Amino acid sequence: MQKKELLYIQIANNLEYQIKHEVFKVGDKLPSLRTICIEKGVSLSTATQAFFELENRGLIESRPQSGYYVSLSPEKFRAIPETSKPIIVNSGSKHDEMMSMVIKNFDQAQITLSSAMLSPDLVPIAKLNKSILNATRSLKDSGVSYSKDGSIRLKTQIAKRAITWGGKLQVKDIITTGGSIDSMSFCLLALTKRGDTIIVESPVFFGILRLAGSLGLNVLELPTNPITGIEVEAVKKALEKKKIAACILVSNFSNPLGSCMTDENKKAVVELMEKHNVPLIEDDLYADLYFGNHRPTSCKTFDESGIVLWCGSFSKTLVSGYRVGWVVAGKFHEQVARAKQFHSMYSSTITHEAIGDFLEIGRYEHHLIKLRQILYRNSLQLQRCISEYFPEDTKFTRPIGSMNLWIELNKKYDTLDLYNKAIAKKISITPGRIYTMQNQFNNCFKLSYGKLWNEQTENAIKLLGKFTRQL
Amino acid sequence: MQKKELLYIQIANNLEYQIKHEVFKVGDKLPSLRTICIEKGVSLSTATQAFFELENRGLIESRPQSGYYVSLSPEKFRAIPETSKPIIVNSGSKHDEMMSMVIKNFDQAQITLSSAMLSPDLVPIAKLNKSILNATRSLKDSGVSYSKDGSIRLKTQIAKRAITWGGKLQVKDIITTGGSIDSMSFCLLALTKRGDTIIVESPVFFGILRLAGSLGLNVLELPTNPITGIEVEAVKKALEKKKIAACILVSNFSNPLGSCMTDENKKAVVELMEKHNVPLIEDDLYADLYFGNHRPTSCKTFDESGIVLWCGSFSKTLVSGYRVGWVVAGKFHEQVARAKQFHSMYSSTITHEAIGDFLEIGRYEHHLIKLRQILYRNSLQLQRCISEYFPEDTKFTRPIGSMNLWIELNKKYDTLDLYNKAIAKKISITPGRIYTMQNQFNNCFKLSYGKLWNEQTENAIKLLGKFTRQL
Repeated sequence: MQKKELLYIQIANNLEYQIKHEVFKVGDKLPSLRTICIEKGVSLSTATQAFFELENRGLIESRPQSGYYVSLSPEKFRAIPETSKPIIVNSGSKHDEMMSMVIKNFDQAQITLSSAMLSPDLVPIAKLNKSILNATRSLKDSGVSYSKDGSIRLKTQIAKRAITWGGKLQVKDIITTGGSIDSMSFCLLALTKRGDTIIVESPVFFGILRLAGSLGLNVLELPTNPITGIEVEAVKKALEKKKIAACILVSNFSNPLGSCMTDENKKAVVELMEKHNVPLIEDDLYADLYFGNHRPTSCKTFDESGIVLWCGSFSKTLVSGYRVGWVVAGKFHEQVARAKQFHSMYSSTITHEAIGDFLEIGRYEHHLIKLRQILYRNSLQLQRCISEYFPEDTKFTRPIGSMNLWIELNKKYDTLDLYNKAIAKKISITPGRIYTMQNQFNNCFKLSYGKLWNEQTENAIKLLGKFTRQL
Repeated sequence: MQKKELLYIQIANNLEYQIKHEVFKVGDKLPSLRTICIEKGVSLSTATQAFFELENRGLIESRPQSGYYVSLSPEKFRAIPETSKPIIVNSGSKHDEMMSMVIKNFDQAQITLSSAMLSPDLVPIAKLNKSILNATRSLKDSGVSYSKDGSIRLKTQIAKRAITWGGKLQVKDIITTGGSIDSMSFCLLALTKRGDTIIVESPVFFGILRLAGSLGLNVLELPTNPITGIEVEAVKKALEKKKIAACILVSNFSNPLGSCMTDENKKAVVELMEKHNVPLIEDDLYADLYFGNHRPTSCKTFDESGIVLWCGSFSKTLVSGYRVGWVVAGKFHEQVARAKQFHSMYSSTITHEAIGDFLEIGRYEHHLIKLRQILYRNSLQLQRCISEYFPEDTKFTRPIGSMNLWIELNKKYDTLDLYNKAIAKKISITPGRIYTMQNQFNNCFKLSYGKLWNEQTENAIKLLGKFTRQL
């Protein structure tokens, strides 16, 4: 079963490669199913599955009595947004209000395209319930007491998974937390004080802006490329010019850009941090959702001195309601452990153990294999829809992991207007403006696709395209 | 069953009252069981139960072939510690280290008398497991998603219980959190900034000192009476003299003193806070563990203007590992809700719903009735043991709720030495020194009794008495 699945995916991937490199161009007829069977030496059912897969990805379409044709090559259409150039006019509290208003309204939406969050249809609920039951059975006293050292079972699994990104981790290096924001909060409480400056990407996840604002930190937003992430040269200049208390990077499949730093850039940034002795808080919560053949490395992979505080979470990849995250704080371990204990004592015993159980019996890996396929297909479908329904000069990113896609409209449009029109129809999108403290990204917005794709989703994108043209 | 239980407790309480007021003095013979039966019109089994109860409370002893005799009247022996007089020499970082060392060593103990925490034997584990199961069944999608508004079921129950302390609460007033420290952390993050001064009791729960220290706050420790809590006059003077950012009070059965503010004092403090517009963070996590006939009021009971941020938790009264607490932040609701969202997003969906379930089906009330009896008996046993085994000039508090007892030895003793001797024998106590940032309480320590009382406990206290005499 597993093998067969891999075979049809393999064929689909090969064909996709050819489509993307214009061996087959838009409108071209694909080889017949029979040809595929003979060429690849596979059964008719496998060949059919491969074509269905390509159809799901939005790359081909069947024409009755005729066969399959290339309907779209995502690489052909539309430009990719350029590297951001943050300006330096801080817009302060007005921004806070807008952010709160925008986020509050998300709850009204029936079609949620705003939140980087898995819809429950993509969560293995029954199996997680089983792990909750297992946890109450295996924990001493069913987990009614404080978990003083955190769940060892969970920490062991997190440490074991370090093999997927080339990390060297021991159980004792890991501090479990209630999620990624929790982890970053403890790191910033431990390492910064009011008035300090931190550097971040631009656009940057609004939760980081809110957290920094709450602690009275100044945020320096640096130029960021939609493909390769924060510009190393900009980091270098910032460190040389100003006293920086910490740097926060979502190194892999950032929200909202979806950028993924190259190994070279990761290495270079870590070296810069070491040189200037500035802690790097790496929010690495999406990396398991890669579309390629393997998980990308992390900045932590290249960290020899312990300057990187590597934060992770299962909220984006498995289950958000259990509140399970962690931080490996390197040489700041003691400070961060204290910040956690002083501000929240211990984590929820049962839910942390349940995730430990879920991983230990191999269910996480299995879940990820399916999830990555679904998200990859969704990302292609979304690109197809935007190409089809939005104005010609619309730029958008090409996600290679996770569930976020960043769209840049012509400068003349204000996506806050689009947001308002959409929310009136109970569709939520995230306007670009809330991903910065500066007055920019007003013509941008983010769509998330962590859900089962259906006609309703397609219609919502179509409507967004229509609204955009009407603006 | 319930009625019969109440009857024997009623008889025991009457006799205890007579013993405490020396109607029956130490060494006096009590009326025979037969006399009790006739006088009170109860069965022999009820009378016997009442005598067992008094024996359990350490007040009477049976002498073979003779009957029951008064063995101790706790009120007769030993003085109660006096109102604290905090001095003003701050001892800074040395204190931090000692506190960390002391708390870390607790884990080595086999007999834990240091932590205000229920031992698992006092927790209704099977019934809580049932509530976890109920939660996964009743929650939409089994609670895998974020709980954006918190558990409405839980909040409804917390709001309903306000009748026990005369509070006026609506569901929308309640912000659920991961426990009391969590609640206070969000309050302080919302209301204070580095360098601000807050006022607290003295001695004060060390977790409050650590939290304040982590946020760079100055802590002003005020004189506190072991029976009635913080001195109102001292609060008044502090507010008049200095800019105060907030006040934190454990109004009911404080840790470590066990003091309980009178209604009059609560009202007076709230009025002072209103007058000076200083937020009062009321950490009210022990109130459900009263030994009297009804729950004491809270400062929040007397709060008309919303100046009180009322924090609570189920960690001390039911289950610590679930991480369930709350805060009702009055006029600071928006700020505190934002601090929670910015620093930790949402709470653990399943465990919060499980507590909601547990309360909704009436199990919490039932649990508390039994728990309060056990803790009350323990408090009396502990007082008897200290009277018996410690030097004559030992002073100690008379708890009227919760699980903490504060002991003041002769000034010549250093309880850090006692702590070291005890921990070597795997017994943990909490030296008084960690409940202050000043150089005081060196001759004091705290014992907690949130566990089933047994011979081992008694022997441990005996040993502590022996060690004290050896110091």
